[in-house]
Amino acid sequence: MFEVISVDKAREKILQYLNKKKIEKVYFSEALGRVTAENIYSPMNLPPFSRSTVDGYAVRSSDTIGASESLPALLNLKGIIEMGKSSDIAINSEEAMGISTGGMLPENADAVVMMENTDSFDDGSILINESVASGENVIWEGEDIKSKELVLKKDHVIREQDIGALSALGILEIFVYKKPTVGIISTGDELVSPEEELTPGKIRDINSWAIKACVEKAQAIPKFYGIIQDEQDEFYETLTRSQIECDLVIISGGSSVGTRDLAAKTINDLGEPGVIFHGVSVKPGKPTIFGLAQDTPIFGLSGNPVSALVTFDLFVRPAIRRLLGLKPYDESEQVSARITRNLSSKGGREDYIRVSLTRKNDGTLEAEPILGESGLIFTLVEADGIIRIPQNTEGITAGESVQVFKRGVIK
Amino acid sequence: MFEVISVDKAREKILQYLNKKKIEKVYFSEALGRVTAENIYSPMNLPPFSRSTVDGYAVRSSDTIGASESLPALLNLKGIIEMGKSSDIAINSEEAMGISTGGMLPENADAVVMMENTDSFDDGSILINESVASGENVIWEGEDIKSKELVLKKDHVIREQDIGALSALGILEIFVYKKPTVGIISTGDELVSPEEELTPGKIRDINSWAIKACVEKAQAIPKFYGIIQDEQDEFYETLTRSQIECDLVIISGGSSVGTRDLAAKTINDLGEPGVIFHGVSVKPGKPTIFGLAQDTPIFGLSGNPVSALVTFDLFVRPAIRRLLGLKPYDESEQVSARITRNLSSKGGREDYIRVSLTRKNDGTLEAEPILGESGLIFTLVEADGIIRIPQNTEGITAGESVQVFKRGVIK
Repeated sequence: MFEVISVDKAREKILQYLNKKKIEKVYFSEALGRVTAENIYSPMNLPPFSRSTVDGYAVRSSDTIGASESLPALLNLKGIIEMGKSSDIAINSEEAMGISTGGMLPENADAVVMMENTDSFDDGSILINESVASGENVIWEGEDIKSKELVLKKDHVIREQDIGALSALGILEIFVYKKPTVGIISTGDELVSPEEELTPGKIRDINSWAIKACVEKAQAIPKFYGIIQDEQDEFYETLTRSQIECDLVIISGGSSVGTRDLAAKTINDLGEPGVIFHGVSVKPGKPTIFGLAQDTPIFGLSGNPVSALVTFDLFVRPAIRRLLGLKPYDESEQVSARITRNLSSKGGREDYIRVSLTRKNDGTLEAEPILGESGLIFTLVEADGIIRIPQNTEGITAGESVQVFKRGVIK
Repeated sequence: MFEVISVDKAREKILQYLNKKKIEKVYFSEALGRVTAENIYSPMNLPPFSRSTVDGYAVRSSDTIGASESLPALLNLKGIIEMGKSSDIAINSEEAMGISTGGMLPENADAVVMMENTDSFDDGSILINESVASGENVIWEGEDIKSKELVLKKDHVIREQDIGALSALGILEIFVYKKPTVGIISTGDELVSPEEELTPGKIRDINSWAIKACVEKAQAIPKFYGIIQDEQDEFYETLTRSQIECDLVIISGGSSVGTRDLAAKTINDLGEPGVIFHGVSVKPGKPTIFGLAQDTPIFGLSGNPVSALVTFDLFVRPAIRRLLGLKPYDESEQVSARITRNLSSKGGREDYIRVSLTRKNDGTLEAEPILGESGLIFTLVEADGIIRIPQNTEGITAGESVQVFKRGVIK
């Protein structure tokens, strides 16, 4: 009915069309998990002054040479440095100032002696019981980062510590790649919303809600367009609107040949280049459609929920990740396991099989296949992951190691 | 100055006090990543009627016995079943009805013949070119899940497919464990907010913002109490307020001995049991405090950002995960790597060392230690993870395999 292409080829075509990332400015503390769209440089030295890392006495290290418990150095206490205040007094030879952890070193001081290695007397004299080297118990001005140095590279995924660093430098706004808005359309005359009562012949919409969750987990912003009827005008009107309002559109449903053809036709009607491929050599997910309408990528996924979620993982998630500035695949979403049974596969296509995983005593994982129609959502509720049987094999043998794409927490 | 306990013992004590999870009702589509606080049962059979999985003709399988292309079975077309409508007509012997994928099977039909294995004629007769078994191309009523069967077990982490299943069953609200509200207090007379101008002696607050990001990543709700001065009344007032308003409180700062003692004293003043431990045999993070004020767990973390984030991972995150109904540790946050250099360690404590990771050609990871003061946030910005040197070793040898706690995306 249509020419199918391989999974790899399909993904390659998708990514080839997804290279226009949008950029936005965000407040630094809202940037967790986002990707920098610029090199960020430091506007200042951090710390902005030399600081003590201990409670004790700021000294000139040269005054402590040779000092020990049996032969302490005698210094005069010039005062106490208050936390958060400038130390506008300089110390001279044989002078010390009291300082707390984080306090600003007075001028001429180059080391701090820890409190426990000193004795202080009422007359303002201090005995120093150890020799300290220049820089001891001190963080120098600019030791953490210097003015104009690179803070975060472009295309960096922002973590908790990066937010701390931006705060330290007073960098309040940064440019990151924009979260794509993803339009979600379900089609099918038999579908109703989950809050509606069922009448005979109707079923509740699964895909809109499962796909919304997938979109959110992928860090994009879902936008619902509801359930549309399998009818040309409604397809055209809804796709036109969503293509203008969204960065990416997912239509799900249309398991019948007529609906699939209608989806493909409408994508073509919306303008060049239209449908890029229609049909992938994968099970489940063969009737997957990918196209572009006025530059907006549009995915047509099967109405079968298992098929829709497998093809979301294979094709839509890499596309969303590309728009977010992330690499298309997240390897931490994969684990290895030993398959418990032989699984045959038809040559010339990739098979994706739902599995439940069990942790064995030796720490390794065992994957038990869950078979069943791709229309049965509970086969996926029971599953902990999905394994791939590559295109050019005749299946896999019990005991073989397989790569599992996680779909939930592994016990 | 205080008695230190081991990391394991500290964690054990924390978890022992964290067993009062709160529960809330959420809309099913907002439940992604949350943990069920109840067993959820199905209110209905899914699908609610037997459905076709293909486009074709609904038949009685007995009418197709022995049918083939050379010897087709002749049936009469009784009509077409509209999608989303009840099939209120029953078929009799030697009758068939047109049906689309997802359509409701008419009474007496028990199989569907695919369109491509039939020929239809203008006079309303259909030639069936294959024999179908009972149930072929059909999903039976209740085949996905039956009424009263378990949908999701208590303590289950909700995934995308689970949201789809809840939608299918019209289960609109479910009970999950409540996200804890986590109070964040920074202390230090030298601290200012990131948007403020720096005056001499001041530095910008790092920990409030890095910890806020840690709390959000852990799926809890951060609540800021600002920067408080190292002063007894302000400590008491802010801790009292936060302990009432939050499920867990983090105070960071207080690197000086005086401030640490003030934090511990205030926790004790707030009521029984007060401070549970003060001091852990870990570097960085030795002065960590844990206590309970009126049942609210309170953590005192170091003012050094590296120390604060390491001890957040070690102690606070497991506590938050416990309140969310998750197991305390997320193993997918760990990877193995080979250390590039010898690292010595003082016996009697656990050492946590920042490392940068490099993926080698053979796919394995190499961990290069990043040394430096725990006051330097950029040592953690450069790091991809943190490794643990266990308490009863004298260090690790170059080439040894180490467990890495990830702090970001591994290239």
